[in-house]
Amino acid sequence: MKTIVLKFGGTSVGTIDRIKKVSKIIAFYKKKKNKVLVVSSAMSGVTNELINKSKLISSNFDRAEYDALVSTGEQVSCALIAGRLKHNGFKSRSWTSWQLPILTDGPHSSARISSLGIKELNRYINSGGIPIITGFQGVSKNLRITTIGRSGSDATAIMLAKFIKADECIIYTDVDGVYTTDPRQYKKAKKIKKIFYDEMLEMASLGSKVMQPTSVQDAKLNKIDVEVKSSFVSKSGTLITNSKKAFSDQIITGISSTKNDAKITIVGVKDRPGVAASIFKPLSKNLINVDMVVQNISLDGKETDLTFTIKADDLKKTEKLIKQNKKISFKKLSFDKGVSKVSIIGVGMITTPGITYRMFQALASKKINILVISTSEIKISVLVSVKHVKKAIAALHKEFKLDKL
Amino acid sequence: MKTIVLKFGGTSVGTIDRIKKVSKIIAFYKKKKNKVLVVSSAMSGVTNELINKSKLISSNFDRAEYDALVSTGEQVSCALIAGRLKHNGFKSRSWTSWQLPILTDGPHSSARISSLGIKELNRYINSGGIPIITGFQGVSKNLRITTIGRSGSDATAIMLAKFIKADECIIYTDVDGVYTTDPRQYKKAKKIKKIFYDEMLEMASLGSKVMQPTSVQDAKLNKIDVEVKSSFVSKSGTLITNSKKAFSDQIITGISSTKNDAKITIVGVKDRPGVAASIFKPLSKNLINVDMVVQNISLDGKETDLTFTIKADDLKKTEKLIKQNKKISFKKLSFDKGVSKVSIIGVGMITTPGITYRMFQALASKKINILVISTSEIKISVLVSVKHVKKAIAALHKEFKLDKL
Repeated sequence: MKTIVLKFGGTSVGTIDRIKKVSKIIAFYKKKKNKVLVVSSAMSGVTNELINKSKLISSNFDRAEYDALVSTGEQVSCALIAGRLKHNGFKSRSWTSWQLPILTDGPHSSARISSLGIKELNRYINSGGIPIITGFQGVSKNLRITTIGRSGSDATAIMLAKFIKADECIIYTDVDGVYTTDPRQYKKAKKIKKIFYDEMLEMASLGSKVMQPTSVQDAKLNKIDVEVKSSFVSKSGTLITNSKKAFSDQIITGISSTKNDAKITIVGVKDRPGVAASIFKPLSKNLINVDMVVQNISLDGKETDLTFTIKADDLKKTEKLIKQNKKISFKKLSFDKGVSKVSIIGVGMITTPGITYRMFQALASKKINILVISTSEIKISVLVSVKHVKKAIAALHKEFKLDKL
Repeated sequence: MKTIVLKFGGTSVGTIDRIKKVSKIIAFYKKKKNKVLVVSSAMSGVTNELINKSKLISSNFDRAEYDALVSTGEQVSCALIAGRLKHNGFKSRSWTSWQLPILTDGPHSSARISSLGIKELNRYINSGGIPIITGFQGVSKNLRITTIGRSGSDATAIMLAKFIKADECIIYTDVDGVYTTDPRQYKKAKKIKKIFYDEMLEMASLGSKVMQPTSVQDAKLNKIDVEVKSSFVSKSGTLITNSKKAFSDQIITGISSTKNDAKITIVGVKDRPGVAASIFKPLSKNLINVDMVVQNISLDGKETDLTFTIKADDLKKTEKLIKQNKKISFKKLSFDKGVSKVSIIGVGMITTPGITYRMFQALASKKINILVISTSEIKISVLVSVKHVKKAIAALHKEFKLDKL
């Protein structure tokens, strides 16, 4: 007998028909004699509707009331799922965060789960019941409702799997798994059967919207294997794990790309200690995220060029902040809005030499110019012109044999 | 410094603009240095929307999940009101039933409040805060959410007023008070300034939809004076009280009438002990409410005629149940769907003789035939043809000088 945590995202429970469908999926696992626990998000659209109401009330809506407001969405979907399971003859009931309780630390709207009461849940699943638990929320020490950020239901499922010592944690969503690259960018993209947490973290932060990086981090820290699959089609998904068992000898697991990046070069900056810090401090203060950074070698020890990338939306603000910055002097600023970061990701590259060379060679053979390079242990990123992105992904997908998965 | 409980009904908080308006009303009382506590219903329409969802999930939706589901409506409206008050610079926060807690006894969807935690509330109002409390709900002893029936928010306000020892309890709704009779039936209807609980109970159960009878009963039992007024217009409302102070010497306080009644006469029933019970038992079992009952005197001791009224909607079912009833025998059934009960209500009639005569005389002078009569200590009801209702109300309104209030 396995203990299985199932989590359903907003689109999976987006309509009454979807809730009926999801109840069938839950019943499928229950009929196999498993102990089944369910975590659900709010019906898609509902949370946004509540957020809109708060915005109409105040442009600076109180965070604690915001949490009290939006947390109702999961209470609704969970009651409906439990109601449907009961209708179909199963023993089921909904549980809210204060009833378990799910305790959280940290500020409203971005709290983190610190503990999760499992005593009653254990009694209930041992008696054959299916608990339906509100995702995305908890209660603070002073008994106020908190939320753990958008997509926080994944975190609830992972923490529940940890505390209840689940054998499986399956995250049902509207995509059927993690792909080697975005299928909209490259038709031959293949579904990845197994991916390491660290690879998934790089995939997620680089634009794959299957799971939030914080949830992947939670899964990694708590050693919970997570399967991501679709509630819309009956297909196997992607297992996110740290287990080496049955992993292929694939060096590169996936290729990701960003959208709407911009490149800035500050030409002829007076080179002195701390100049980079002087440039980036006001950007950081204004929540502008600087990604890739290259500082050219200063030939004369007096002047240097500094290149970095940001989101294109931040370009005007960044330009203004640099021009207003009295702690630096430079000759001119140049901008390029039409750039994109393409990355290859895979733990295999740690033990396999020559990956960087193969990447550059593959791009060069297609006459794709590399503007900036950055690397980590399991990732190599290059900045290319946005018009070359599709071509670059195709070349890399072939080079690292992802087409043949 | 007064302690005031304000309660807002669903239409009073039905839109974002209404919530802003209601926040101004709350601010008005707060600025006068009162301690103010607020109870709110769900935004109008929201509860019905949730109920519809439950019906689409199951025709027999679990009662506990139903309560978990519909109780979210008040959580939303209370968070929005608190958010608006904070936006306007007041200290305010929302409170749900489990946070106080509001404990209830009894079954789901028709629970009753047994206790209400005021420790934190007292600390909060003493520090100048305005608590916004979810109406209509509580938690059971096993920590599940319960609801206390439609319009249960009135009961929450009354119990809160009791436990917090409030000086005033004001129920804001979409009508501006209790009228001597339905203004749609009679244009000269006047607003009643003060009404006794018992009179209000009779008015409510006879069709005045200002307050649910159970809430009036709660107010009476807990000796809470309740003012009912409109959140849409700035006018004084109606005070429901037991205090004799400043009551006029009005004998009759109001006139109510019912709609959609039907009269049934069972002709030639074999008269034996227990025959009435034999007739009414299957009706009661089928939740058919029998109202006025008249049994004619049995002249020969063998046969009698029995007349009673029910809601017209129940007529077919009632006919079937009587015809199927093997414990009785009778000659024929006759029906009249076009009847209505007109009642005069007033505690004054206890000490004033001749009221019945004056009522009958007033109706007779307008050639209105009385079909059935029933009386209580503070009420006299007559059944008349529905085509005479308006004329009857006008005649009685004049006879008892309600036109001149």
